[in-house]
Amino acid sequence: MKVHNFNAGPSVLPNEVLYKASKALIDFEGSGMSILEIGHRTPLFQAVMDEARNLVRELMQLEDDFEVLYLHGGATQQFLQVPMNLLENDGTASYIDTGVWSNKAIKEAKQFGFVDVAGSSKESNYNYIPKQFNVSPKSTYLHITTNNTIYGTQWQQLPEVDVPLVGDMSSDILSRQMDFNKFSLIYAGVQKNMGAAGVTMVAVRKSILGKVTRKIPTILDYRNHVENGSMLNTPPVFSIYISMLTLRWLRDQGGAAAMEKLNEKKAALLYDEIDQNPLFRGTVAKEDRSRMNVCFIMDKPELEDEFLKFTKKEDIVGIKGHRSVGGFRASLYNALPYESVEVLVEAMKYFSLKKA
Amino acid sequence: MKVHNFNAGPSVLPNEVLYKASKALIDFEGSGMSILEIGHRTPLFQAVMDEARNLVRELMQLEDDFEVLYLHGGATQQFLQVPMNLLENDGTASYIDTGVWSNKAIKEAKQFGFVDVAGSSKESNYNYIPKQFNVSPKSTYLHITTNNTIYGTQWQQLPEVDVPLVGDMSSDILSRQMDFNKFSLIYAGVQKNMGAAGVTMVAVRKSILGKVTRKIPTILDYRNHVENGSMLNTPPVFSIYISMLTLRWLRDQGGAAAMEKLNEKKAALLYDEIDQNPLFRGTVAKEDRSRMNVCFIMDKPELEDEFLKFTKKEDIVGIKGHRSVGGFRASLYNALPYESVEVLVEAMKYFSLKKA
Repeated sequence: MKVHNFNAGPSVLPNEVLYKASKALIDFEGSGMSILEIGHRTPLFQAVMDEARNLVRELMQLEDDFEVLYLHGGATQQFLQVPMNLLENDGTASYIDTGVWSNKAIKEAKQFGFVDVAGSSKESNYNYIPKQFNVSPKSTYLHITTNNTIYGTQWQQLPEVDVPLVGDMSSDILSRQMDFNKFSLIYAGVQKNMGAAGVTMVAVRKSILGKVTRKIPTILDYRNHVENGSMLNTPPVFSIYISMLTLRWLRDQGGAAAMEKLNEKKAALLYDEIDQNPLFRGTVAKEDRSRMNVCFIMDKPELEDEFLKFTKKEDIVGIKGHRSVGGFRASLYNALPYESVEVLVEAMKYFSLKKA
Repeated sequence: MKVHNFNAGPSVLPNEVLYKASKALIDFEGSGMSILEIGHRTPLFQAVMDEARNLVRELMQLEDDFEVLYLHGGATQQFLQVPMNLLENDGTASYIDTGVWSNKAIKEAKQFGFVDVAGSSKESNYNYIPKQFNVSPKSTYLHITTNNTIYGTQWQQLPEVDVPLVGDMSSDILSRQMDFNKFSLIYAGVQKNMGAAGVTMVAVRKSILGKVTRKIPTILDYRNHVENGSMLNTPPVFSIYISMLTLRWLRDQGGAAAMEKLNEKKAALLYDEIDQNPLFRGTVAKEDRSRMNVCFIMDKPELEDEFLKFTKKEDIVGIKGHRSVGGFRASLYNALPYESVEVLVEAMKYFSLKKA
């Protein structure tokens, strides 16, 4: 029996990925060894690494200048690795401040150069995406967080700028169609839409590397990972394997185009209910609503606990909102079935009738 | 059918760990979710993290001043994180050079301060552990690699010094009894003796932290991980779970004392054969022989390929030596059964008779 898993991350994965991985834990590809017991410099694992990187390239339709890396450390490590590799001590990078994750990225960048916060929605608790901002052509890059899990906002259109674009896509990568080639560097902890916790995907244009003068520690220098085919040191073997399986599933479903269609349908169903149901209310500017994380509250906050308990009985998991917004947050990542959203919407309808 | 897995790492794991993990991939503790699908800030995962850290503390019998952390990035990241957190720009750290891994650690440390290479066995291709060396009492710390996978050497006695001792124990942690409290910082990629690839264990005395003046990026500062209970960002959930299961198994076997006994027995069986069999020869000074990685060559190198093919038919995996030493390397980590060594020794005997 599976629950309806609306966790914000780590989160739901496709059943077939879990079944295949469960078998590989006992015997991987008939090797007589578990996937956890094979050497990372064997043809067995090299095939996994190659397929995962190639699937990223194919599904994102990346131009040749891009290198695809699987790195340790989570997106949090990228907050420092990006400016360490790209930003000179006397240079300036522009960041759009759309919440907690942008702020963490900004904090690390300040250790390596100057930061220009070109836009922010802080004054209204980040419930929209800033649309008016100026980025100096002298800026080294512009950094955006394409989806904001905590507030439920998402960039619907990419900013048009003349400087390299850097994107933290941890929570919406490959959940929709996008011209990924508009970016110069994309990073994403894989645990929401393309795998499980333990590894971070970085797609970076080779042409932007090697331009800073600072000395970079070996494992933090992207060029060393490029040179070593993403195997500078022992990689997180199992996490890369799970990402490879998830990407295979994603491709077989029809890629980003199919995901976009499914995710739009799921989000529309839930937002429609929020907008129609007198008990619930969305927290985000409609035009910036995320299709990944749907945030909503109740006009009568005293009913929230009761609703949570009610949904729990329906095997609905993970819809409690982040403390900085309150209320509820339902995360609708790629692997969440449409049926789970139907169950949640039915629960909202039923609860509302009961209280009417 | 399982093979005899002598891989140098990632390497063999206990069967019961693999079976338990295989089930948890489908349903973790009756939650209706896979271990890959649960949030890391749930009681379900908090219990895993707590048990893993407590088991490390218990099995290593660490004093209260120690904090146990599970970090991203592999031991390779510790090569930079150790000096970044401990060594002042104008300070000096001492390192004993026992091969490739020590050298990588030395290279990173040089970016943060001065390095005094207090001893080295480089002149004889690292086939012994240096015993005569002076460490200045002004040195910030002394760094050693307790076991050297590539060359098959191992520190049998810890150096007696008046400065804090730092140990890279990636390849022999908890494989033998040791007074771990002689150290101030211990790090180990867990994939050889206490888990699978994807996470690194760091045990650090709180009293040595916070003494450098440099500004440290958030995720690289040990203090931030201490403060956040090793959950500064999304941890590598599954790798920590596997480490917890492996440590449970280790405790149930009788802990480091039982492992030492088993590993000594395995190593003795193999080294005795190497010493008696006219075809084979050990490459390491006898008093420094590793009980984890047994390196040996053939006097007639032209037979090596034939022997490799012969052992392959016996389902013996992973005994090809590292290119810098050649010949063979059999890794006898905690989870390798005694029976696998018997099979290898039988193969050596039989091959030798055939060639006599």
